[in-house]
Amino acid sequence: MAPTSWLDVASDSPFSLANIPFGVGIFPGHDKPSVAVAIGEYAMNLAVFASSGGFSQLADVQGHAEVFDQTALNTLAALGRRFSAIVRRFLQEILKETTPYPHLLKDNKDLQSRCLARLTEVDMRLPFNIGDFSDFYGGMNHAYNAGALFRGQNGALLPNYLHLPMAYHGRSSSIYVSGTPVRRPWGQIVEDLTATKHPIFVPCRTMDFELELGCFVCGGNKPFDNISIENAEENIFGFVLLNDWSARDVQRWEYVPLGPFNGKNFATTISAWVVLADALEPFRSPGMIHPGPLLPYLQEHRKDFTYDLKLEVQLRSGSTKRLSTICSTNAKDGLVWSFPQMLAHHTITGCNIRAGDLLGSGTISGESTSSLGCLLEQTLNGRRPIQLEGGEQRTWLEDGDEVILKAWAGDEQHGIVGFGNAAGVLLPAHKQIVPSKAAL
Amino acid sequence: MAPTSWLDVASDSPFSLANIPFGVGIFPGHDKPSVAVAIGEYAMNLAVFASSGGFSQLADVQGHAEVFDQTALNTLAALGRRFSAIVRRFLQEILKETTPYPHLLKDNKDLQSRCLARLTEVDMRLPFNIGDFSDFYGGMNHAYNAGALFRGQNGALLPNYLHLPMAYHGRSSSIYVSGTPVRRPWGQIVEDLTATKHPIFVPCRTMDFELELGCFVCGGNKPFDNISIENAEENIFGFVLLNDWSARDVQRWEYVPLGPFNGKNFATTISAWVVLADALEPFRSPGMIHPGPLLPYLQEHRKDFTYDLKLEVQLRSGSTKRLSTICSTNAKDGLVWSFPQMLAHHTITGCNIRAGDLLGSGTISGESTSSLGCLLEQTLNGRRPIQLEGGEQRTWLEDGDEVILKAWAGDEQHGIVGFGNAAGVLLPAHKQIVPSKAAL
Repeated sequence: MAPTSWLDVASDSPFSLANIPFGVGIFPGHDKPSVAVAIGEYAMNLAVFASSGGFSQLADVQGHAEVFDQTALNTLAALGRRFSAIVRRFLQEILKETTPYPHLLKDNKDLQSRCLARLTEVDMRLPFNIGDFSDFYGGMNHAYNAGALFRGQNGALLPNYLHLPMAYHGRSSSIYVSGTPVRRPWGQIVEDLTATKHPIFVPCRTMDFELELGCFVCGGNKPFDNISIENAEENIFGFVLLNDWSARDVQRWEYVPLGPFNGKNFATTISAWVVLADALEPFRSPGMIHPGPLLPYLQEHRKDFTYDLKLEVQLRSGSTKRLSTICSTNAKDGLVWSFPQMLAHHTITGCNIRAGDLLGSGTISGESTSSLGCLLEQTLNGRRPIQLEGGEQRTWLEDGDEVILKAWAGDEQHGIVGFGNAAGVLLPAHKQIVPSKAAL
Repeated sequence: MAPTSWLDVASDSPFSLANIPFGVGIFPGHDKPSVAVAIGEYAMNLAVFASSGGFSQLADVQGHAEVFDQTALNTLAALGRRFSAIVRRFLQEILKETTPYPHLLKDNKDLQSRCLARLTEVDMRLPFNIGDFSDFYGGMNHAYNAGALFRGQNGALLPNYLHLPMAYHGRSSSIYVSGTPVRRPWGQIVEDLTATKHPIFVPCRTMDFELELGCFVCGGNKPFDNISIENAEENIFGFVLLNDWSARDVQRWEYVPLGPFNGKNFATTISAWVVLADALEPFRSPGMIHPGPLLPYLQEHRKDFTYDLKLEVQLRSGSTKRLSTICSTNAKDGLVWSFPQMLAHHTITGCNIRAGDLLGSGTISGESTSSLGCLLEQTLNGRRPIQLEGGEQRTWLEDGDEVILKAWAGDEQHGIVGFGNAAGVLLPAHKQIVPSKAAL
């Protein structure tokens, strides 16, 4: 039986004592975001806890207490994975029923009233100031399925796919925290690419989500150095869920030869709480077996390069408000490339990674029909509608639909390590495109 | 005859009174970067000037003086194009021979000693904290030439090219200010794409530069709104030169289907001084004629959508140190898409633009052999070496070579509006790829 907390933590809470994810939110009575962790139904304000001397006996935090008095996790993460691991373990000690330090919080009702708040009362913000966002293509089932739909089965996996973890640079400004509504974009589409190639300008007709894991990095390499695969783990801070909203019709017309741009740049949704890499260590798992051969700089030294992490996508219908689970899969069934491989490849040119940069895994799809991580695959590019609860169907997302990504490892006996939702409602497109006012 | 300055401004200075570009640098005796402008051989520290009351009679600056006491131009730019235009015009009044405000600087030797420094004494830094970098493909000659080399003349211009200003998201972390050496990257390359498709891992063999204009934006639209083409100009702060260093062999193997990634992510060099859009207004010029038709949201309302801006690339040989001019072209001869069109397209999905975001124009090539903006085109992908001064040849860049981009409008009589250099020396690749130390 895992240790329990003196706080009330429901056995099905994603934020068990085994988790302690980090985030940033505005607490009741505060006017700016604070660094926080989640435990059960509560958020704990680490800026308040630190300023009350909560970390005063933790030698590793001495001289670094300012990292909690920030509006984003960048400064904390820049101290490295070991630092956040030490803080997390100390907070587990503080929060467990049999804490050796009851005076620090358990028996201090005044401090509790100032540093604990119900999750529902905290206005969560993006956990990091995200410098660069690189979205990989590490899910091999997805790469095969999408390739087959776009190019036929013979050309499904391109010759480079198994040699390098490919990626495109994504858009940082439009990454939104869970709960932010997303508006259907307008764009250029071509109705039949094989016939006329004159685009029309309409709201996207084929709105899709993509189920991905996001990986926040601690920092890393100096300009023109690299991060070796052996050192990559030390540079990984933690993980979020990531919905790479995709306007498929826009993407298809624009993506040759420079890759996706307007088809993706309007919105990416991430979950608010960052699950530390250390919290997922107990759930390490082998992933898809790469057939090889791999160049030495990409040779992963461990077979259990991914996690036994259950993933789910729910769709709440905009018209019936009923919830349907439209995808159930697992990180171990979809990814053929590991985050260390992605980091090693990304930096092999000397490209510098900064604390708070975000890597997307690529869409994670299993092999069965119920485990596909986007509608493109689920509906065979719109040809096979999926069934929703209550008798509705979907080929693509409809206005008012909410997409909710979920992930969790562990079980109720040992404590669940969950991600909280990455959710967003799709708003209808603007009726027409009107000029916007300039900044001033 | 244009007004002259009471400061000594050489007639061939790129930073005439007609220019007044903005930048950020560390002045002698200072320990952090300051907002500055350039005039002749001098940089003028606007933080010092503002704190001495230099702007006290400029109504539009009241309540905004803090924008000069920053380490980057983001806050200033976020006040909009009109604000920087007012500041520039006021500084022209302060600096001209017949200034109506001689007490503010011309007759104040003490303030001069504190706010003016020789350009050579100021350590220039990146002008902006660059949130997102989007690199367009607006040079049609380049797009045609590169397409013909990669895909043959029939497929040179892809069907979408003339319908939308295409772009890829670039890497922000590795944008360096002029003068920063760039290291040749390692990467995966395939020697003969038509035969074996097994990559080898070697230092890039086909290092190239790309001559581009960079456009810094003031800010812009709220999430899920757009910037119309009519409003785009108001959101443009100014321009820099941009060298989009390219590892062609790496790029060629990786770029299908997600676009360039490692082939570009190691370095982008920009010039230090940002020439305000207003300073280039007198040099407006028609560009390449788009054959049409264009969707309404991309219809540029002016024919003179670009600038009569001379562009030059010099190569200083690493072995002989001799300087060769290897490209002479003009912005009006290369670009078929305007920056307003790029901004309108980029934001038509609701993608939000933030102050300090950077847009690249794409490589600017004229039609003649001497006006091509990268070695890929100049050497027909390595098949036709170019001649350098002193009898050397180049197909691709060699270690120790320095690439220097230059741009200027105007003439000595009316004052030159120049960009200063975007220069970088190519360092040899690391001898081998060694593990780098983690952040902590």
